[in-house]
Amino acid sequence: MVYLRKSIFVLVLFCGFVQSSVIINRIDDDCELDPKLVEEIAAYQNVTRHIMEEIRMRGLGETMYKEYTEFIDKFGARPSGTENLERSIDHMINLTRQHGVNDVTTEELQVPHWVRLHESARMLQPRTKNIAILGFGTSVSTPSEGITAEAIVISSFKILDATNRKEIEGKIVVFDAPYVSYGDTVVYRSQGASKAAQKGAVATLVRSITPFSIYSPHTGAQYYADNVTKIPTAAITLEDADLLRRLQDEREKIVLNIKMSNTFDTKTSRNTLVDLKGTEHPEKLVIVSGHIDSWDVGQGAMDDGGGMMISWFVPVVLNALKLKPKRTVRAILWTSEEPGLVGAQAYLKQHTKELSDINFIMESDEGTFRPLGLDVAGSKQARCIVKEVLKQFAPINKMGNSGYPGSDIVLFINKGIPGASLLNQNERYFWFHHSEGDTMDVQNKTDVIECAAFWAAFSYVIADLSVDIPRQ
Amino acid sequence: MVYLRKSIFVLVLFCGFVQSSVIINRIDDDCELDPKLVEEIAAYQNVTRHIMEEIRMRGLGETMYKEYTEFIDKFGARPSGTENLERSIDHMINLTRQHGVNDVTTEELQVPHWVRLHESARMLQPRTKNIAILGFGTSVSTPSEGITAEAIVISSFKILDATNRKEIEGKIVVFDAPYVSYGDTVVYRSQGASKAAQKGAVATLVRSITPFSIYSPHTGAQYYADNVTKIPTAAITLEDADLLRRLQDEREKIVLNIKMSNTFDTKTSRNTLVDLKGTEHPEKLVIVSGHIDSWDVGQGAMDDGGGMMISWFVPVVLNALKLKPKRTVRAILWTSEEPGLVGAQAYLKQHTKELSDINFIMESDEGTFRPLGLDVAGSKQARCIVKEVLKQFAPINKMGNSGYPGSDIVLFINKGIPGASLLNQNERYFWFHHSEGDTMDVQNKTDVIECAAFWAAFSYVIADLSVDIPRQ
Repeated sequence: MVYLRKSIFVLVLFCGFVQSSVIINRIDDDCELDPKLVEEIAAYQNVTRHIMEEIRMRGLGETMYKEYTEFIDKFGARPSGTENLERSIDHMINLTRQHGVNDVTTEELQVPHWVRLHESARMLQPRTKNIAILGFGTSVSTPSEGITAEAIVISSFKILDATNRKEIEGKIVVFDAPYVSYGDTVVYRSQGASKAAQKGAVATLVRSITPFSIYSPHTGAQYYADNVTKIPTAAITLEDADLLRRLQDEREKIVLNIKMSNTFDTKTSRNTLVDLKGTEHPEKLVIVSGHIDSWDVGQGAMDDGGGMMISWFVPVVLNALKLKPKRTVRAILWTSEEPGLVGAQAYLKQHTKELSDINFIMESDEGTFRPLGLDVAGSKQARCIVKEVLKQFAPINKMGNSGYPGSDIVLFINKGIPGASLLNQNERYFWFHHSEGDTMDVQNKTDVIECAAFWAAFSYVIADLSVDIPRQ
Repeated sequence: MVYLRKSIFVLVLFCGFVQSSVIINRIDDDCELDPKLVEEIAAYQNVTRHIMEEIRMRGLGETMYKEYTEFIDKFGARPSGTENLERSIDHMINLTRQHGVNDVTTEELQVPHWVRLHESARMLQPRTKNIAILGFGTSVSTPSEGITAEAIVISSFKILDATNRKEIEGKIVVFDAPYVSYGDTVVYRSQGASKAAQKGAVATLVRSITPFSIYSPHTGAQYYADNVTKIPTAAITLEDADLLRRLQDEREKIVLNIKMSNTFDTKTSRNTLVDLKGTEHPEKLVIVSGHIDSWDVGQGAMDDGGGMMISWFVPVVLNALKLKPKRTVRAILWTSEEPGLVGAQAYLKQHTKELSDINFIMESDEGTFRPLGLDVAGSKQARCIVKEVLKQFAPINKMGNSGYPGSDIVLFINKGIPGASLLNQNERYFWFHHSEGDTMDVQNKTDVIECAAFWAAFSYVIADLSVDIPRQ
């Protein structure tokens, strides 16, 4: 897929690149805002309190959480290109209208449709043992009899580079890089197959990108570089990766059999736009977003059902509260984020001429656990305004500075548009991420409602301020 | 199996009934031991320190941990009745001899041999979704086409009892009792099928007996009561149980298909006895034990590879250190604990006449995480002696009083023999217990060595004291 080739830089960013809770803001201590603006922002305290209390206390948040749960329970996993994803989009459109918001549109685009069929693996030597695997999106299939080959366990690209080609050729490379952070370690998932293929490997298995496991493999996107043989590639559990490492260290010969089959084509999907039109500057946009697609394992409750839902809720709840800000609040339910920000790329292309109208862009795609604040990208002045607004949300007033907030919105951030993602207490995010463990069980109603309340009230202020958020 | 019918009382006790870390000793504050005995015990301080330091610092513990890891990596799961279990027993016998301990014998017995073949389940209504299942030991198979039936979710036996038979008949009962403690909640696994069958259910699925899940089902023993239809019974994950509960609460009709096949027969296995003969009272025994069999999922590293290994290590390391206590130290590697303490029951029967010779009996079957002390059963005087000995192991000097320390050894405790199990920092024990997550990854080398050092040094003192541990 061309977009993948062009966009390897974003491949490490999908879905919660940032472990946001570890970010502590130590900058922007020297903000000097116009006192009038400070005063204007302070005057929003009553309305933000009103919004949050209505959501927390008057059943609006409860209803949203119920609709969220019903959505996840009804549709479960919503992989890119599937009919189930399209039905879930239809459901959200209908739900929007049921809430009396009729300014809902969709924009079609072509998306990858990779379907996992059979997958299994077995250690044949030094003893027989089933190995749980979970193929990475876009992986090719094995022949139907599988691939049977000796395995070599390699813990880094540096060691791969230093290893004689003869040691790799014809083998299954098992990457067992220890989890450092998602950003550091995910390269073995996204690029491992290509790197190993360049040295003649016949398949790769990758230690799942997670700090903790109960024998749970984690899938995700991967990328075949140009001019390499496409070899099958899949995740294995931490437990099996560590076992294979020990066996190799004991100089045991390891032989594995891997069977994978899948299909890969292209389908039509849709980005969904829900607008609450601005009263003074309807052409100016504050975008709040999450992605509606998910991986095919688990239920896509955390990644990114929660973020999608609290973003969708912003125009819906402001409309219900009869609060119409000066600028348009647009909720976007991105499609096909997981295979590589496909929906966001299409939106960017389709709306190139209107990018200057995007005042601020937000995404929640790193969990909807207890909200802590925002990870903010933008000019110093932009960050100072956000910081001033956040004051009235204490203790939800932490400000991060990762440089890459969100997943889809990074494409817009890279164009100089200021934006933010939701900081939340997401230390366990990667325990569940892209695995069967991503279900409603990881969500806490109070926390999700608190995220929604903060997300809506903050968006309202930004969309209603007398000044635009300044760019670089 | 007759032993199961006779022993329903022990079915709730297998493998870590006690969350030992929560036990805080508030009794035995008024011990009055003979000052001479107190003095005698205190004099062991040098030798216990010596034993522990040799194990910690001089490589003995390192070697034991290496042998433990190699054992688990070589054999993996060791279910009752399998050839793999017998090979693993042979391995331990050879390892004992390699360490220069030749007083190793085995005692044959008949054990259940239940073999899991194909298992799968699928929700057909209100939507299609695979449901991970893990059959319980001794469950019968379904017909080859599976059982397709409506499901009813029931959270307690009380509610089952109060439900009209017509509501249950022909249905699959899903027990979704929330995890309170292993002891409280495991009855739905061990008795759920029988209770539901009495009301005409065609199968049961049980919310796994664990406080935490990453979509991980947990197996275990179950028991068919007399005169009930034997219906298939399996674990499901917390996540799916909670989903089914929500769907039922939303008044959705739930239809499931369950396919299970297995075989069940009887095989010969062996308890393994490793003796370090006592210098003064060779007929008197201090037994230290763990079970060598495991469930068929995971690797049996925690349950009970660790406990088996540190117990086996006691006579081996004392022999290596040329420390021969007055009484015989006997390590027992119980076979076939998981299906219902089968090895321990056979030993009890075979050694009925020698029970009076058992001075003290110990088992580690609740994890080998950071050691905290002992869970002790016995007369007040017995407990006071143990308490006095524990003083020299501070901070490993907590004393529990659950009444049911260990698993196999409960059979002996019930005969009035004093005994103890290892208290350790095992809050996460049930996260991994009886699941694919029971692997070497949950073990920490330093903690296991610390357990082994404490276990060996404590055993030595008890086996060497001038006085027997008094019974009730």
